[in-house]
Amino acid sequence: MSEVKQISIIEIAKSIDGEIVGDDSIMITGVSSLKEAKVGYMSFLGNKKYASQIKDTAASAIFVGHDFNKFDAADKTIIICENPNMAFGAVISMFAPPPIEFPLGISESAVIASSAIIGENVHIGPCAIIEPDTVIGNNTVINAGCYIGHETTIGENTFLYPNITIRERCKIGNRVIIHPGTTIGSDGFGYEAGPTGIIKIPQVGIVQIDDDVEIGANCTIDRARFGRTWLKMGVKLDNQVHVAHNVVVGEFSMLIGQCGIAGSAKIGKGVIVAAKAGINGHITLGDGCRIGGTSGVVKDVAPGATVIGTPAEPQREFMTRYILPKTVTKLKAQLKEIEERLKKIEG
Amino acid sequence: MSEVKQISIIEIAKSIDGEIVGDDSIMITGVSSLKEAKVGYMSFLGNKKYASQIKDTAASAIFVGHDFNKFDAADKTIIICENPNMAFGAVISMFAPPPIEFPLGISESAVIASSAIIGENVHIGPCAIIEPDTVIGNNTVINAGCYIGHETTIGENTFLYPNITIRERCKIGNRVIIHPGTTIGSDGFGYEAGPTGIIKIPQVGIVQIDDDVEIGANCTIDRARFGRTWLKMGVKLDNQVHVAHNVVVGEFSMLIGQCGIAGSAKIGKGVIVAAKAGINGHITLGDGCRIGGTSGVVKDVAPGATVIGTPAEPQREFMTRYILPKTVTKLKAQLKEIEERLKKIEG
Amino acid sequence: MSEVKQISIIEIAKSIDGEIVGDDSIMITGVSSLKEAKVGYMSFLGNKKYASQIKDTAASAIFVGHDFNKFDAADKTIIICENPNMAFGAVISMFAPPPIEFPLGISESAVIASSAIIGENVHIGPCAIIEPDTVIGNNTVINAGCYIGHETTIGENTFLYPNITIRERCKIGNRVIIHPGTTIGSDGFGYEAGPTGIIKIPQVGIVQIDDDVEIGANCTIDRARFGRTWLKMGVKLDNQVHVAHNVVVGEFSMLIGQCGIAGSAKIGKGVIVAAKAGINGHITLGDGCRIGGTSGVVKDVAPGATVIGTPAEPQREFMTRYILPKTVTKLKAQLKEIEERLKKIEG
Repeated sequence: MSEVKQISIIEIAKSIDGEIVGDDSIMITGVSSLKEAKVGYMSFLGNKKYASQIKDTAASAIFVGHDFNKFDAADKTIIICENPNMAFGAVISMFAPPPIEFPLGISESAVIASSAIIGENVHIGPCAIIEPDTVIGNNTVINAGCYIGHETTIGENTFLYPNITIRERCKIGNRVIIHPGTTIGSDGFGYEAGPTGIIKIPQVGIVQIDDDVEIGANCTIDRARFGRTWLKMGVKLDNQVHVAHNVVVGEFSMLIGQCGIAGSAKIGKGVIVAAKAGINGHITLGDGCRIGGTSGVVKDVAPGATVIGTPAEPQREFMTRYILPKTVTKLKAQLKEIEERLKKIEG
Repeated sequence: MSEVKQISIIEIAKSIDGEIVGDDSIMITGVSSLKEAKVGYMSFLGNKKYASQIKDTAASAIFVGHDFNKFDAADKTIIICENPNMAFGAVISMFAPPPIEFPLGISESAVIASSAIIGENVHIGPCAIIEPDTVIGNNTVINAGCYIGHETTIGENTFLYPNITIRERCKIGNRVIIHPGTTIGSDGFGYEAGPTGIIKIPQVGIVQIDDDVEIGANCTIDRARFGRTWLKMGVKLDNQVHVAHNVVVGEFSMLIGQCGIAGSAKIGKGVIVAAKAGINGHITLGDGCRIGGTSGVVKDVAPGATVIGTPAEPQREFMTRYILPKTVTKLKAQLKEIEERLKKIEG
Repeated sequence: MSEVKQISIIEIAKSIDGEIVGDDSIMITGVSSLKEAKVGYMSFLGNKKYASQIKDTAASAIFVGHDFNKFDAADKTIIICENPNMAFGAVISMFAPPPIEFPLGISESAVIASSAIIGENVHIGPCAIIEPDTVIGNNTVINAGCYIGHETTIGENTFLYPNITIRERCKIGNRVIIHPGTTIGSDGFGYEAGPTGIIKIPQVGIVQIDDDVEIGANCTIDRARFGRTWLKMGVKLDNQVHVAHNVVVGEFSMLIGQCGIAGSAKIGKGVIVAAKAGINGHITLGDGCRIGGTSGVVKDVAPGATVIGTPAEPQREFMTRYILPKTVTKLKAQLKEIEERLKKIEG
């Protein structure tokens, strides 16, 4: 029904400061990965190891980096640029439908405590609940069904998707994005064996989320036993990540899907915890370290180190362990040979 | 207070086209597993390896398959049928309370955009939010607290349990069932290292859920970076499953509890990914393959193959690895013996 | 802005029945771990292995147990008590802000079926939905956005945080605490391969949650296929725990973050399933057993046993496996030596 959008390759190259090599008269009609591209589409080579896909793609033009070997271009038109992935992202946005606009104002069905301090230019969606003594900063969006607990403060330009729960006394910074279904400020898991059974230890601390943090869907971030559970500036969480009480995550670290950080662990700056990894309580991951997917980390990791496996160990040791069946097969063969030589001697 | 329901074993056998061997005058008063059955109960043998439980069960009658060895029946009454599990399911329904009915109509406290197109015979529950330019098909149920984002379409006879979030522009098919707390259409996890820190890559694609898909509770299905994240016809997801951006899952595949599929992975038809398994991004699982529970799959899996472990490998190789401690113990013994023989020679 | 709260160490020692050794004139102004304490703070030694931290802490006073070696106190003031962790918890509460009060009564925007029986002194928050034929006990709190399905009963003094979904016919006991985003009573994952594709098996049982259970955030507890999924008295679940249909969890067992229990498993009393562990369906974990973090348990575990790894095995066997690379390295060295001796003989 709608006409196909067309953008000239010259306009595209100009917008991302790239250099066209090939046919500069092409009109681009869509975007896609190399494998799924159609004629007229713009694609990108994000990683040189996929260069062989270029000769087979139907894409009409491809973003490549400065390190691209032009012989790999086959007869395709390329745009050489600083960062093919980023350039591609910019073109995606050109073809994308306009972002959803949430109207300014407070929905009639939202329930806002009279003591709440609400900034300017906010959107507060239907059935959102804002409890007493909260502060909501300017230009912040709180979508339908969100719950903001007592005395919690939320900064400016922050965006909460629907059905998020943030309990009392938490501190959420500026330009924070939180995806649906996430819980912030639930009690940490703390019990003591008492004379009459298990006794719950009060969890009276808070969660502090600093500026520019993004938190995926259905994550859980527990409040501290005392003090704070703390995600520092620029931290990014994927979906279904669990952060326990009193954990501190350093600036710009990334916690990937379904990983979990146990209580009081300290994660340094720029750390990547890959998918499904588990980090023990009370340990420290040094700045810039990398934790392999599904790993179980049971002791401190040095800054910059890469560990993998359960219990997690350096990649070299993990590989030694991984090839152990082959190593043992060789030993068996050697043993057999020795036995034969022995027999000969004995015989 | 309520009288015990009674159904004759003849009526039961007839309803599922089974053959009674034993006492056909029994009245059945309930259903249970073999272990927990009481006198008067109907039970079933779902797997021949549990046949030894039959002699100890209190159940008065048991569904068995055509391959059942009648010597295992002890003196129990059995009903021989095509599929004991299915037959048992049918009898469960006979004894179950009637399913909950959700009244037709739109709750007063639901918030429906005027531009939304709502089909006939729908139930839209309290505090459900339907954003502008959405389409909701006939006979569809949207329960309390659900959020349906802008321009999203939902087919006919689809059932959404409470507190589900579906973001903008997603496409949900017919006869889809989604359980509570699930998030559909959250942003994929995509960032690039930029000159001034981490830059978020726009995620402007959608999620497409085809007909007859069922999605468990508290799952997360991310929208595509561009294009679509796609669950094809008949796919079944258990609880807490994470599906990342641009993943495609083929017809009738099953993703079991707490498994996770990383970005752009392609899952074939009829695949089973068992509980807690993790599938790396950008890899392909062939039609009909089986992924063992808790496995970490890091490379393509051939159609029909079974893999297990982390990194996942064929079952045979996994077993070799598993028995390695025993293998090494044997080698140690062999070595010791050789040493003694050597000493003898040397001495 | 607010004055610093001060409590004398004599008052603190008295409140927890402890004995001061050192300066009893100290005024305490806050609480913290040994590592993060400031001058004037109270801290605690929860585990003797951290005793060496005492000499470096800035804390002014420290709770220790009766087994504490006074030589480790350096020149710090200590309070000797029965349980340093519990004592510390009591002092945390002295310094904590007062707990949030939820006003008695039913919010105007809550939607309560006329057939629901609501006890006295309840709080039912905004946009909470209570379906027909439910029972809510006295002094129970149901926070904003919760959904209580048809015919479900909830006991007295139970506390539901926001945005929880409990489906029909479930039974929740007294003094139960449930954290945000949790789903109770979703369908178990059950299908049969039928002649025309996958057929859903009706899940007509319930979930029963006994007294004094606590359930973390974003957990999922499936209803039984028939009968009940059952958490017995005092069971504690951390966040993102998945409990499948027909599972039974015995009294006071603990399921730690992101672990998952597959269908029909039986967990004994006082069991600890550590973080991210997976328990196969239809197996039994004996009373008091311990399951290591990230383990995959595929067969029964004896009462009191500790298992670890995937497939899970006793700790001793796990260690043998863990040190296998070193064992094999030694074998290689032995083999090399033997070869040399052989060559000598042959030469």
